[in-house]
Amino acid sequence: MTRRVFCINGPNLNLLGQREPEIYGHQTLDDIGALLLKEAQVFDIGVEMLQSNHEGQIVDWLQQARTEASGVILNAAAYTHTSVAIHDALKALDIPVIEVHLSNPAARDAFRSVNYISPVVKGSIAGLGSVGYVLALKALAQLIPST
Amino acid sequence: MTRRVFCINGPNLNLLGQREPEIYGHQTLDDIGALLLKEAQVFDIGVEMLQSNHEGQIVDWLQQARTEASGVILNAAAYTHTSVAIHDALKALDIPVIEVHLSNPAARDAFRSVNYISPVVKGSIAGLGSVGYVLALKALAQLIPST
Amino acid sequence: MTRRVFCINGPNLNLLGQREPEIYGHQTLDDIGALLLKEAQVFDIGVEMLQSNHEGQIVDWLQQARTEASGVILNAAAYTHTSVAIHDALKALDIPVIEVHLSNPAARDAFRSVNYISPVVKGSIAGLGSVGYVLALKALAQLIPST
Amino acid sequence: MTRRVFCINGPNLNLLGQREPEIYGHQTLDDIGALLLKEAQVFDIGVEMLQSNHEGQIVDWLQQARTEASGVILNAAAYTHTSVAIHDALKALDIPVIEVHLSNPAARDAFRSVNYISPVVKGSIAGLGSVGYVLALKALAQLIPST
Amino acid sequence: MTRRVFCINGPNLNLLGQREPEIYGHQTLDDIGALLLKEAQVFDIGVEMLQSNHEGQIVDWLQQARTEASGVILNAAAYTHTSVAIHDALKALDIPVIEVHLSNPAARDAFRSVNYISPVVKGSIAGLGSVGYVLALKALAQLIPST
Amino acid sequence: MTRRVFCINGPNLNLLGQREPEIYGHQTLDDIGALLLKEAQVFDIGVEMLQSNHEGQIVDWLQQARTEASGVILNAAAYTHTSVAIHDALKALDIPVIEVHLSNPAARDAFRSVNYISPVVKGSIAGLGSVGYVLALKALAQLIPST
Amino acid sequence: MTRRVFCINGPNLNLLGQREPEIYGHQTLDDIGALLLKEAQVFDIGVEMLQSNHEGQIVDWLQQARTEASGVILNAAAYTHTSVAIHDALKALDIPVIEVHLSNPAARDAFRSVNYISPVVKGSIAGLGSVGYVLALKALAQLIPST
Amino acid sequence: MTRRVFCINGPNLNLLGQREPEIYGHQTLDDIGALLLKEAQVFDIGVEMLQSNHEGQIVDWLQQARTEASGVILNAAAYTHTSVAIHDALKALDIPVIEVHLSNPAARDAFRSVNYISPVVKGSIAGLGSVGYVLALKALAQLIPST
Amino acid sequence: MTRRVFCINGPNLNLLGQREPEIYGHQTLDDIGALLLKEAQVFDIGVEMLQSNHEGQIVDWLQQARTEASGVILNAAAYTHTSVAIHDALKALDIPVIEVHLSNPAARDAFRSVNYISPVVKGSIAGLGSVGYVLALKALAQLIPST
Amino acid sequence: MTRRVFCINGPNLNLLGQREPEIYGHQTLDDIGALLLKEAQVFDIGVEMLQSNHEGQIVDWLQQARTEASGVILNAAAYTHTSVAIHDALKALDIPVIEVHLSNPAARDAFRSVNYISPVVKGSIAGLGSVGYVLALKALAQLIPST
Amino acid sequence: MTRRVFCINGPNLNLLGQREPEIYGHQTLDDIGALLLKEAQVFDIGVEMLQSNHEGQIVDWLQQARTEASGVILNAAAYTHTSVAIHDALKALDIPVIEVHLSNPAARDAFRSVNYISPVVKGSIAGLGSVGYVLALKALAQLIPST
Amino acid sequence: MTRRVFCINGPNLNLLGQREPEIYGHQTLDDIGALLLKEAQVFDIGVEMLQSNHEGQIVDWLQQARTEASGVILNAAAYTHTSVAIHDALKALDIPVIEVHLSNPAARDAFRSVNYISPVVKGSIAGLGSVGYVLALKALAQLIPST
Repeated sequence: MTRRVFCINGPNLNLLGQREPEIYGHQTLDDIGALLLKEAQVFDIGVEMLQSNHEGQIVDWLQQARTEASGVILNAAAYTHTSVAIHDALKALDIPVIEVHLSNPAARDAFRSVNYISPVVKGSIAGLGSVGYVLALKALAQLIPST
Repeated sequence: MTRRVFCINGPNLNLLGQREPEIYGHQTLDDIGALLLKEAQVFDIGVEMLQSNHEGQIVDWLQQARTEASGVILNAAAYTHTSVAIHDALKALDIPVIEVHLSNPAARDAFRSVNYISPVVKGSIAGLGSVGYVLALKALAQLIPST
Repeated sequence: MTRRVFCINGPNLNLLGQREPEIYGHQTLDDIGALLLKEAQVFDIGVEMLQSNHEGQIVDWLQQARTEASGVILNAAAYTHTSVAIHDALKALDIPVIEVHLSNPAARDAFRSVNYISPVVKGSIAGLGSVGYVLALKALAQLIPST
Repeated sequence: MTRRVFCINGPNLNLLGQREPEIYGHQTLDDIGALLLKEAQVFDIGVEMLQSNHEGQIVDWLQQARTEASGVILNAAAYTHTSVAIHDALKALDIPVIEVHLSNPAARDAFRSVNYISPVVKGSIAGLGSVGYVLALKALAQLIPST
Repeated sequence: MTRRVFCINGPNLNLLGQREPEIYGHQTLDDIGALLLKEAQVFDIGVEMLQSNHEGQIVDWLQQARTEASGVILNAAAYTHTSVAIHDALKALDIPVIEVHLSNPAARDAFRSVNYISPVVKGSIAGLGSVGYVLALKALAQLIPST
Repeated sequence: MTRRVFCINGPNLNLLGQREPEIYGHQTLDDIGALLLKEAQVFDIGVEMLQSNHEGQIVDWLQQARTEASGVILNAAAYTHTSVAIHDALKALDIPVIEVHLSNPAARDAFRSVNYISPVVKGSIAGLGSVGYVLALKALAQLIPST
Repeated sequence: MTRRVFCINGPNLNLLGQREPEIYGHQTLDDIGALLLKEAQVFDIGVEMLQSNHEGQIVDWLQQARTEASGVILNAAAYTHTSVAIHDALKALDIPVIEVHLSNPAARDAFRSVNYISPVVKGSIAGLGSVGYVLALKALAQLIPST
Repeated sequence: MTRRVFCINGPNLNLLGQREPEIYGHQTLDDIGALLLKEAQVFDIGVEMLQSNHEGQIVDWLQQARTEASGVILNAAAYTHTSVAIHDALKALDIPVIEVHLSNPAARDAFRSVNYISPVVKGSIAGLGSVGYVLALKALAQLIPST
Repeated sequence: MTRRVFCINGPNLNLLGQREPEIYGHQTLDDIGALLLKEAQVFDIGVEMLQSNHEGQIVDWLQQARTEASGVILNAAAYTHTSVAIHDALKALDIPVIEVHLSNPAARDAFRSVNYISPVVKGSIAGLGSVGYVLALKALAQLIPST
Repeated sequence: MTRRVFCINGPNLNLLGQREPEIYGHQTLDDIGALLLKEAQVFDIGVEMLQSNHEGQIVDWLQQARTEASGVILNAAAYTHTSVAIHDALKALDIPVIEVHLSNPAARDAFRSVNYISPVVKGSIAGLGSVGYVLALKALAQLIPST
Repeated sequence: MTRRVFCINGPNLNLLGQREPEIYGHQTLDDIGALLLKEAQVFDIGVEMLQSNHEGQIVDWLQQARTEASGVILNAAAYTHTSVAIHDALKALDIPVIEVHLSNPAARDAFRSVNYISPVVKGSIAGLGSVGYVLALKALAQLIPST
Repeated sequence: MTRRVFCINGPNLNLLGQREPEIYGHQTLDDIGALLLKEAQVFDIGVEMLQSNHEGQIVDWLQQARTEASGVILNAAAYTHTSVAIHDALKALDIPVIEVHLSNPAARDAFRSVNYISPVVKGSIAGLGSVGYVLALKALAQLIPST
C-alpha cells in the first residue's frame, strides 16, 4: 500500500503569502503543497494538504488519520498554544507526527511559550520556513516503513 | 412531560474502547449509552447521547438544553481545562448539570488542574469509569422533579 | 463605495435578553442590531450583524472582513480570554477594529484578566451596555475614511 | 466474610445540621449515617460511621482500615487541603477509597483548590450533599468483590 | 440644575502635544478641553478640566465631585497602575465615572496590566485618542439624568 | 448569666517565659492568665485559660465555645499559618473572636504571611506582648452584651 | 513634659460617617477624635488628629513626629498597601507606632494583603472600628514612659 | 549522666516493612530500633524509639526532649512538609537534632520540596534507608559531649 | 549658556546625617550639595539641590527640567520601587539622567528589587555613598555638551 | 571557498552510544560525525565535529566560528537550559545556526522548558535522533550561499 | 580489586580554612582529605581528593568515574544550584554517589533552594561539617560491594 | 606597596568593537584598558586587564585577587545572571569590588533581571559605556587606602 501523509495546517495559515509578504515571503500554502508533492514523489508517498480555522476540525482529521494515513505533518499555528483537545487526539495516534512552525516561536510573545503539541509528537522543526515542511517529509520517509 | 437528559461528551470520547483498551477498557461510548438507557428506563427518563470534537457545538447543545432538557450529564474532556465559552453557557443554564470524568484528572498532567466546569455545575463525579455516568443519572433522577 | 462594518459577536451572546434580564436588561442582540442600523444610516455605513459560538467561525469572518468590510466591531465574549487564533486573525487585519464588552470584565473572575484581543485592536469600550456598540460605530465612522 | 466500609469524616462535620441549616440543610451526620445504613443493607455491607477533628486520628483509622475494612468513604473536610499525612496513609491503602464533599469546593476559597486527597483515591464525588455519600456506597458495592 | 462633569487628568498629561507629537499628535490637553466643551454644549453639560501630577490631589478632586459634579471622566495615567487611594475614592463615589486612556495600555509594559481603576468605574474607553474623551461625554450624557 | 471568655493558646505557647526570656520576657502563660483574670474581674467576665499543641484539640475547644462561651481570645501560634480546620471551626462560631499575637508576625519568616485566622475573626491585635491579651479582653467586654 | 501622640489618618478617612453609614457606622473622624481626647485625658496625654489624602504629607508628619511627638497612631488606609516612602519614614522613627485599621483587611481584596506598614511598627490592631483607636492609645500609654 | 537520644518518627512510619516491601524493604521500625540500640551501646547512649501519626504528639515529645534528652533523631515524614508547629518546637530546642529521611524526597512529588524542618536542625541525612538512622546516631555521638 | 544640573532627592533623604549616623555617616544632604558644588565648579556647571517627600513634586521638577536643566541626578529613594508616574516623566525627558543610590538596594528587602527608574535613565550608580553623586556629576559633565 | 560547518556538541554527548543504548541507540558521536560527513560530501561542505563539557569552550568555538565557519549545528545539551553566555555568543554570530536535540525536551523535566538557545538561532530540530543532524545539514546547505 | 572513591569538590572549596575560620573552622580541604584517608584505610578503600572551580572539569571527572571509581562523594558547592550539566553526568553514572554539604543550605539564600544534584544521587548529608564527609564514606563502604 | 586593581571581564567582552559597532561603539577592550591605564597613573595604581569566556577562570582570578590585588573592577557579563560560583567567590573576598556594565541591563531581557553579583559587591555602575570603567577606578582610588 502506498504510504500516505496528512499535512494538517491550523488557523490563519490559509492567508500565507497574502499577509506581510516582506516577512513571510510570497509563498502560499498551495506553493508549500506543491513543494511537498514534488518531494513526496521521490519517496512514493501520497500527501494530502488540509487547512482549517476550526480546532474541532483538526481533531476530526487527526482521528481520521488513525486509519487513513501513515504519518502526519502538523502546523497547529495558534492552537499549538491553547488546545488540549489536539493534545489528546495526538496521544491517541500511533503513527509518527512531525510538528512544523514556519518561524521561531521562541522569539515571539510570552504566551507562545506554552506548547501542548511538542510533548506528544515524534519530532519538531521550527524557524526554517517552507524548508521545514520538506525536512519533515524527509524525516517521515525514514520513520514510516514502506511496504 | 417525560424528563429528558442530554449526555454531552467532548473531544476524543468517540474513540473510547478503540484506544488503549488495556487502560480504558473495551467499553465504547455506545456501550455507555446503552447502560444509561437501561438505568433511565427505571426512572422513566429519556436520554440523548451527544458527542463532538467542536467546542462551539457543545455550547450550541448546552443552549439547546435550556428548552429541550431537564438535566445534563457533561464530560467536556479536554475542553474542561480550556473553555470559558462552555463555562459561560453553563452559567446561563438553570437545570442541574453533573460533570463526569472517566479517570481521575487530579492524578494527571499539571495543566489539567485548571477546571472551568466544576465551579458552575451542581456536582462532579470522577475516577469511576462508566459507573460515574450511571451515578450521575441516579443523582439527576433525584434532582429533577418528575411531573 | 459604501463603507461596511462587520459586528461580530462571540459565544452565548445569542442569549442576550433571555438570560437574567434583571441584570443584562431585556435588549436582545437583534435590538442592538436595530440600534446600530439606525446609527449607521446617519453615517451612511452598512452594518452586518454576525454571531457564533464557534471560535473557528469567528476567525473565518475576520479573514472575510479583509476584503469585504472597512471596519469591525468585535465582542469576542469568552473567546476574548482564550483564543490565540482570533488574536492572530486580528493581527492579519489592516482595517480598524473596536473591541466592545457589555459589562466590565475587570470586575469579574480572575481568569477574565487574560485578554488576547485588546493588544491587537485599535480601541476598546467596556461596561456601557448597548451604548458601547453605538459608541464603537461612532468611532469607526471617524476612523474609516468615507469614499 | 461480610464486606465492611469505613465512612471517615473530618473536622467540623460533627456540626452538620446545627450550622447554617438554610445552607447545609437540617440533616446531621447521624442522618447521613442512617441513609447509608439503609442503602448498605441492600448490598449486605457493614458501615462504620467515624468523625474526628484530629488529623492524626484520621491517619490512625485509615491504617486500621488496612485490615478491618474492604472500602472507605472519606470526607476529609479541611484536611483535604492541608494533610500530606493523610495523603501518605491513602497511598499505603490497597482497598478502594471514594472521596466525598457535600458542597462544590471548586466554587469556594482559592486555598481549597489545593487537594492532597484526589490524586490518591479511586474516585471523587462532590456537590451532591448527602446523596454523594449514598452514590459513593453504590460505587463501592460494585468495586468491592463480595465473597 | 445644569449637569456638571469633572474631567480629571493624571500625571504627565499636561505635556500632551509637546511630547513626541509624531506619536501622540499635536493636540494639547487644552485642545481636548475645547473639543469636550463644544460637545458638552450640545447636551447642556458643564465641563471642568483638571490636571495634576499629585495622587493626593486627584483623590481630593474625586471627593469634591461627590457634591459638585454629576459625572466624571477620569484619565488617571500612571496612577491607574499604582493607586489604591484613587481606587478607594472611586468606591465612595455614587455618580457615574468613565475611565479614558489615549492609547491602548494592553499593548505596552507588563506592569501596566495592573489596573486599580477599571474594577470600580462604570465603563472604560481606550485606544481612541481624543475621540475617547468625546465618546465618554456622550456616554455620560445618557447615564446622567438631566433635571 | 455571667459572660465567659475562652482564651485558647496554640502550640509551644506553654514554653513562654522559659524560652529566650531576653526576647519574649520572663512572663509565662500563667502570668498572662493572672493578668487577664484581674482585668476580667473589672468587667465581671469569667476567663478560661486553655493551651494545646494539638490542632484537633483547638478545633474541639472552638466547637465547645459555641455553647459554653460568649467570646474567644485566640492565639493559634503556628496553626495560624497552616490550619484550614481551625478556619472552618471559626466560620461556624457566632460569638466574637479576637486574634492575638505576642510579636509582630509581619516582621518574620515569609511563610508566616499566610494567615487562615484573620479573615474569619472580628479583630486582630499583634506585636504588643501580654498587653495584647488585655486589650483583647477590653474589646470583648464592649462586644459581648452583658445580660 | 506632657506626652503627645500624633493620630495620623490616610486617604479617604475624612469621609468616615458620610460614606455607607450602614457599614461603617455614623461615626466621623471628629467623633473618633473626641473619643481619643476623652481617653487621653485619663492618661494626661495630648492627642493631635491629622488627616491627608497625600502620601507625601503623611511622610512629612512622620518626620515631624521625630521631634514633636512621643507616640503615633497610624491608619494609613490605602497607602498601607502601596507606600514604601511611609515604610522608610517609619524605619527612621524611634518612638512607638501603633497601626490601626477600622475593618479587617484580611477579609477584603487580594491586593490588600500587601502591607508595608506592619513590619515596621510596634503593634497592629484591626477590625475593631473606633474601639481600635482607643485600644491603641491605651497601649501607647503603657509604652511611652511618662516623665 | 548517660547521654540519651529521642528517635522521633512521624505519620505512617509504623507501617514500615508491611507496606510495599519490594520498595521499602522488609525492615520494620522495630528493626531500625534494634540497629540503633546496638550502635548506641558502642557509644554508651540511651535511645528511645517514638512514633505517632499526630502532629501535636510530636510537638509534645520535642518539648519533653528539652529536659529529658541530649539529642534527637527526627524523621517527621509527611509533617516535614506541612508543620510550622514542629518548626517552632525545634527552634525552642537547644540540643542537636539530626533530620533523617529513608528515601530521597528530592526525587518525589513537587509538594515535598517544601521543608519546614531542614532550616532549624543541625544536619540532614536522606536517601540511605536505615543506614541513615545509624549515621545520625554516629553524628550525635560526636556532637553531644559525654559527661 | 552655563550647563545646569538638577539634583533631585526623594522621600526621607532630608533626614540624612541625623538618622543612624553609624550606618549612613554624619554627612547631611547639605554636605552632599557642598561636595557637588565644589566638583561642579571644576566643570563650570550649575547645580540645584532639590528634595521632597511628595511623588507629584518630583514629577513636577522632572517636567520643569525639560526646559531649565541640561542634566539630572536622581535619587528617587522609596519612589524608585513604586512610581510609574516618575517613570513616565523620565520617558518624556530628553536630557541625560543618572540614577544614584547611597547604599546597595540589591542587598536589601525583596520589594526593593522592583525598579521603575533604571529602565528609563542613561546610567545608574549604587552603593558608593556620597561618592556616587560626585561620579554622577563627572559622567554628566562628559554627556552634556558644553556650549 | 569551500563552505564549512561547525557541529558543536555540549556536555555528556561524548557518552552517546555507551550510555543506556536501549534508549539512545548504539550510535556514538563518531557515528553521527560519519553520517554528517557523508551527507556533507553531497553538498561539498566541510564539517568539523566538536565536543566539550565546558561552557566556556563552547563560547570560544562560537566566537571562532565568526571567521572560520559559514554555518553551525549546535546541540548545547544541558547548557541549553542554563547558559546566557552561549546565548550572547550566538547573538554576536551572523552565520546561520541550527539547534538540534536528539530527544524531545518538551517531554522531560520542567527545568528543561527554559531554553536560552532557541530565541537566537535560525531554526530548531528536536526528537529525531541522528536524523536531526542530517536534516540540519540539509537546511544549512540551502541557507549558506555556495560561492 | 581495591574499591576506589572519588571525592569531588566544587568551586571555592579550595579556600576552606582560610576564609572566615570563626565560622567554617580552621580545617582545610587537605585536612578533610586526611580524615577520609584514615577512615578509608579501615574499609580498605582508596580515596582520590579532587577540587575545581570549573563546571566542565567536574563533569569530566564524573565521566571518568564511570570506569575508574566505584563510588563518589560530591560536594558541588555553588554548582549544586545551577548545573544541569552535572545533573546529566550523574544520571549517566551507575555507581553510588553521596552528596555532601558542610553547612545547612536550607538555612541560607532563597536561590540555594534550587538543587539539581539531590534528585539524581543515592543519598545526601548536610550541615555536619567535615563529619559529613566521613559519614558519606561509611555509607559508601556499605553500598559498594567489596570484591 | 603600589595599589593594584584587577579588571576582570566575562564572556564575549573580547568581541567589543567588532560586534555591532553602531550600537556598542568602535572601542575595543584594549581601548578601555588604555583608558584605565591612563587614569590609573594619576592615582599611582597598577591595573591588570583580564578576560575569559570560562566561569571557572573568573572564579580562579577572584581567588587570586585575595592575595595579589587591592581592588577589583568586575564586568561579569552573562555570568552576572547565572553564576552562584562567582557570587560565592565574591563573598570570600575582602577587598572592594565595583561591578560595571556597559549598557543598562534593566532595559533588556527579563532573564537579565536576575543578578547574583550586585548583592555581594561594594558598588555598581551601569549604562555609561567605557566611562563606567573609569568612574569605577576613581571610586576604588578613594576606597583603597594608599600605603
